[in-house]
Amino acid sequence: MTSLRSVHLDPQTGCALVLDRGQTLRVRSPTGQQVADVVAFAARSARSAGDAPGTGPRADPDEWFSSGRTIDYGMSIYVTTGSVLYSNRSTPMLTITADTAGRHDLLVSPCSEEMFERLYGVAGHPSCLSNLAEHLGPFGVPAGRIPTTLNLFMVVTPDPVTGRITIEAPSSRPGDHVDLRAEVDLVVGVAACSAEITNRGTLEPIEVEVHDDR
Amino acid sequence: MTSLRSVHLDPQTGCALVLDRGQTLRVRSPTGQQVADVVAFAARSARSAGDAPGTGPRADPDEWFSSGRTIDYGMSIYVTTGSVLYSNRSTPMLTITADTAGRHDLLVSPCSEEMFERLYGVAGHPSCLSNLAEHLGPFGVPAGRIPTTLNLFMVVTPDPVTGRITIEAPSSRPGDHVDLRAEVDLVVGVAACSAEITNRGTLEPIEVEVHDDR
Repeated sequence: MTSLRSVHLDPQTGCALVLDRGQTLRVRSPTGQQVADVVAFAARSARSAGDAPGTGPRADPDEWFSSGRTIDYGMSIYVTTGSVLYSNRSTPMLTITADTAGRHDLLVSPCSEEMFERLYGVAGHPSCLSNLAEHLGPFGVPAGRIPTTLNLFMVVTPDPVTGRITIEAPSSRPGDHVDLRAEVDLVVGVAACSAEITNRGTLEPIEVEVHDDR
Repeated sequence: MTSLRSVHLDPQTGCALVLDRGQTLRVRSPTGQQVADVVAFAARSARSAGDAPGTGPRADPDEWFSSGRTIDYGMSIYVTTGSVLYSNRSTPMLTITADTAGRHDLLVSPCSEEMFERLYGVAGHPSCLSNLAEHLGPFGVPAGRIPTTLNLFMVVTPDPVTGRITIEAPSSRPGDHVDLRAEVDLVVGVAACSAEITNRGTLEPIEVEVHDDR
């Protein structure tokens, strides 16, 4: 596998990158026990109406990774190797082609400044939503367009009778990774989750790589 | 309780309406065994920048009902009396003040034309997404902005070990209803679900009422 690009995410940071159809996004937890939030938007062609000349790659904020459609088509709240991630328009966006951890979450939204204020009375806390918005903004995706994320390595378990969810320690051991193959041209965002409680109190880095073995 | 407005939804149709803070949306299933998809957007003030003079009420497509945030704050995949429905910006949008049925779904996205094509090879099937988009469009919400809905009376049960979901018969008996009190000014959409399989093969009407007992 040829690694085209790699991004080291310091704790509580994020990135956004373009993923061409057929390329693979690898999200790796070097330390384990760290959640990574992932979101994807369809890439727009460079010639979309309204773009200024010379504008770089842009995302289509109207076609986004849909946790609800992914659950519906996969008939599962969990995803792992073989699972397809769908857009709100039912387009297969990404296929999970490798998964050394085995459990991830599709249920809860990315942590946000408002969440830390509401739950802990803390203002200005770093968050996945603000980190994703900061890096997706230049591609044309404002914060208000970021949907429920795929929360890699996050373990959220519902009780089927009461509905109550429990959030357990992340599924990842040191070096665990997930590979996601792009089925269409995409702009993806990845954040090393900023929530202390979700990550056993220790916030760790995440490694992001783009591979191409077409 | 004073009924201000009521809308009869024929099978496989939808509506959108303005709900002022403090007003209550009642969604009633006269026949039972019928799912109703509900979505909400924050209402914009009439004077928002960019509105043409004389423009009617508009929705803010950047503040929408978030199933993911509702699950996160409520720590449950189910909602019933007392549950609060949150926006992507963590604003309490609606509180369920009455619920005679008891089970509803936050996990799966509204049925769409693409879904019927993908699952059954049927083109042009009526769908919740197109019915919601048709009626929310005049308020400034295109189809690409409609998130995972609150699916009233829909029974989706996940297996906590495998993640697999099962979709069972709707929870509603004849006359069951849910009351949702607006915590802020809203534009809401409601659709009588168009999916035969979700509704035991028989598609029924839904009654929508706005009450005001402030």
